[in-house]
Amino acid sequence: MQNRVFTQELVSQVVDELNITNLENATIGEVLLLASRLEQITGTPFIRMDQGVPGLPPCSVGIEAEKEALDNGVASMYPAAGGIDVLKEEAARFVKAFMDVDIMPQSCIPTAGSVAGSFGSFIACSQRDAKKDTVLFVDPGFPIQKSQLKVLGVKYKEFDVYQFRGEPLRAKLEEFLAEGNISTIVYSNPNNPSWICFTERELQIIGELATKYDVIVLEDLAYFAMDFRTYFGEPFCSPYVPTVAKYTDNYILMLSSSKIFSYAGQRAAVVCISDKLFARQFDALAERYSGAGIFGSTFVASIQYMITSGITHTTQYGFAAMLKAASDGELNFVEDTREYARRAHRMKESFNKYGFHVVYDKDIDKDISDGFFFTIGYRDMTCAELMRELLYYGISSISLSTTGSDQQGIRACCSRMSADLYDVLDARLHAFAKDH
Amino acid sequence: MQNRVFTQELVSQVVDELNITNLENATIGEVLLLASRLEQITGTPFIRMDQGVPGLPPCSVGIEAEKEALDNGVASMYPAAGGIDVLKEEAARFVKAFMDVDIMPQSCIPTAGSVAGSFGSFIACSQRDAKKDTVLFVDPGFPIQKSQLKVLGVKYKEFDVYQFRGEPLRAKLEEFLAEGNISTIVYSNPNNPSWICFTERELQIIGELATKYDVIVLEDLAYFAMDFRTYFGEPFCSPYVPTVAKYTDNYILMLSSSKIFSYAGQRAAVVCISDKLFARQFDALAERYSGAGIFGSTFVASIQYMITSGITHTTQYGFAAMLKAASDGELNFVEDTREYARRAHRMKESFNKYGFHVVYDKDIDKDISDGFFFTIGYRDMTCAELMRELLYYGISSISLSTTGSDQQGIRACCSRMSADLYDVLDARLHAFAKDH
Repeated sequence: MQNRVFTQELVSQVVDELNITNLENATIGEVLLLASRLEQITGTPFIRMDQGVPGLPPCSVGIEAEKEALDNGVASMYPAAGGIDVLKEEAARFVKAFMDVDIMPQSCIPTAGSVAGSFGSFIACSQRDAKKDTVLFVDPGFPIQKSQLKVLGVKYKEFDVYQFRGEPLRAKLEEFLAEGNISTIVYSNPNNPSWICFTERELQIIGELATKYDVIVLEDLAYFAMDFRTYFGEPFCSPYVPTVAKYTDNYILMLSSSKIFSYAGQRAAVVCISDKLFARQFDALAERYSGAGIFGSTFVASIQYMITSGITHTTQYGFAAMLKAASDGELNFVEDTREYARRAHRMKESFNKYGFHVVYDKDIDKDISDGFFFTIGYRDMTCAELMRELLYYGISSISLSTTGSDQQGIRACCSRMSADLYDVLDARLHAFAKDH
Repeated sequence: MQNRVFTQELVSQVVDELNITNLENATIGEVLLLASRLEQITGTPFIRMDQGVPGLPPCSVGIEAEKEALDNGVASMYPAAGGIDVLKEEAARFVKAFMDVDIMPQSCIPTAGSVAGSFGSFIACSQRDAKKDTVLFVDPGFPIQKSQLKVLGVKYKEFDVYQFRGEPLRAKLEEFLAEGNISTIVYSNPNNPSWICFTERELQIIGELATKYDVIVLEDLAYFAMDFRTYFGEPFCSPYVPTVAKYTDNYILMLSSSKIFSYAGQRAAVVCISDKLFARQFDALAERYSGAGIFGSTFVASIQYMITSGITHTTQYGFAAMLKAASDGELNFVEDTREYARRAHRMKESFNKYGFHVVYDKDIDKDISDGFFFTIGYRDMTCAELMRELLYYGISSISLSTTGSDQQGIRACCSRMSADLYDVLDARLHAFAKDH
């Protein structure tokens, strides 16, 4: 282990200092603190593959619109509970432009990031029917969503989709759905952390079963249109971004500004509830909230309003302007974010050169896309071993075991990579390979 | 009823059109829609005393700081989970400057308005001890907080403090606290809707009992320093704004930007958790969140982060700048908001002239302050009757019964009053008095 960048003693010392009880199961937050602290002590920079933060400047269209809204004095006025009209309209138009899905502006509701969107959706979906008390995660996935259920005291089930791609997905899902207690199916597409993308056939299976078992699909589109194998950048033109919305009326789409517009700091997303689901009546909601029990209006007025009472007024104008510019063909967010694919491609080359492999490597028969995340394994190393060993070589990442994956490896995020760091990464992986 | 502005038929027709099931128990949202729709149909403006919205322009110090933050590109970066350092420091300094309370910046956490602050606080306070499963409201109060508990499925008790001012408050509170199941005591001060203000002696009683029974006081300071009978506008000088924080370590203060800086649109508040409570360990929190169970870090990392993952980055800079300017003595938010007292005074004069009375009129032996809200009764009319009857005369308000009050009357908000409307109000009250 003579080629390590940071000694085991130093890492152990910082682990103790930060009260990290179990390095091998460290949370994103802990890895982040550890890497920052090691950088601070030694002056040696890390290759930061841990947190999924935007690595591009924020979209200027949004910035300018926010400034204009500030000048117009909207900061003093409570935003409408269901969001400002222009944002609702542009969200609906964007969904039509890039997914060819018809949805009314009324059904598009701004939330304080998709985090608040899933939090409120979990509440509405879990409270609509007492028998349906369990959420099903098609993993790997975003650990925060499971933590949200811990806050709410809602049960969940999970399975790693790795072995169940294509037609086998149907039987696997039905194994859970047949129990009758599943309220919601959750996944992200492209997938965080593995960057697999469901095929149209897989989305069709999910959609058909959601209808058959009356389960709501919560589709997290945080990395919208970042399957760069297909060019989705032309508004109102095929090919459209695949979505379960084509195959069921039981859906909620979560569309975040964080990655597609590099706007993570402003906490703005929209949830798009299918018009049919929005209008559906549930006795359990009527009873709990002493109202009519309509799904959409309960979500807006009785749930989301009680959590944040709307989202930042000026940011709503910013988000609306970016969605509009994209639908107008004046802002090509697909080309802008393609930079991530270039970074991932280059990083994977280095990893492959030194004997590492991509863990989630295929969408059935096609190689996965390059994009924001990828997964890496090394020989027979476990998740925890690889994550920890890479830390000694100045590379921070997330253990796949923390994402509901049964595979061995780590999640790598390429967003903080820059041109001057490729050689550093290469040298460190080289050192790692020599020692292992 | 010949002097009505709107006929009973017209009002009934709009009530039906809007699917308002029970006008007498209408929510704020319903009253608001009804008034707007009647204005739209008839072209006759309402005296809008319903919603508590800022009636002043947003604070320019905040606007400028937000623009600067936008220029600095922070929109792309996730804000720190516990808030940006400058906001945390300025919040702690503001609390010292205007309340003479010592609190560490770490313990001051931004939330998406006090609504998100109370939502997260209810979760943390209710989950810290399985035996303490009930929230106690010292009413009248803000209906949204009870609706939040409906979302969470948390029980609550309530009582109208009207009959229990001063020393009798002790026995009344102990009646509830002796049961051992109360987790949290909630009230706002100055009070929404009644504008009563607790005396130092009352705050001392609440604080002492909170310590004795290990209950957390959630003190809502939305209308901070708006008891205009005393001038609280001098930073770091007595007199200081009264707070329960002087009398117990079991407190969470909620400090909103919405009213003091007319910044409601941006959804920014801070919760200030007492340092001792912040550092306290609770086994139930440790178990639920598989962590150390420290109250403050659980609140930040395991609860609030899972709901919104921080609040709008640029708004945090705006809020920090306004707090700083206030503590520096460069922004006199107390003088700025005194305009509400002038409006309330003028409106109360009209009401008194036509035989109405202020319902919550005393803080024990002193007349209450003029401010953002006041309460109005008319002879032996019930809440519902008075609220409905005033609508016919073009005056919208909130029934006191929806705020946990046992008294008969309505809540009036003065924020949307303007100079040209005083004569209109006077004429309508005159018409009302002639008909009744």
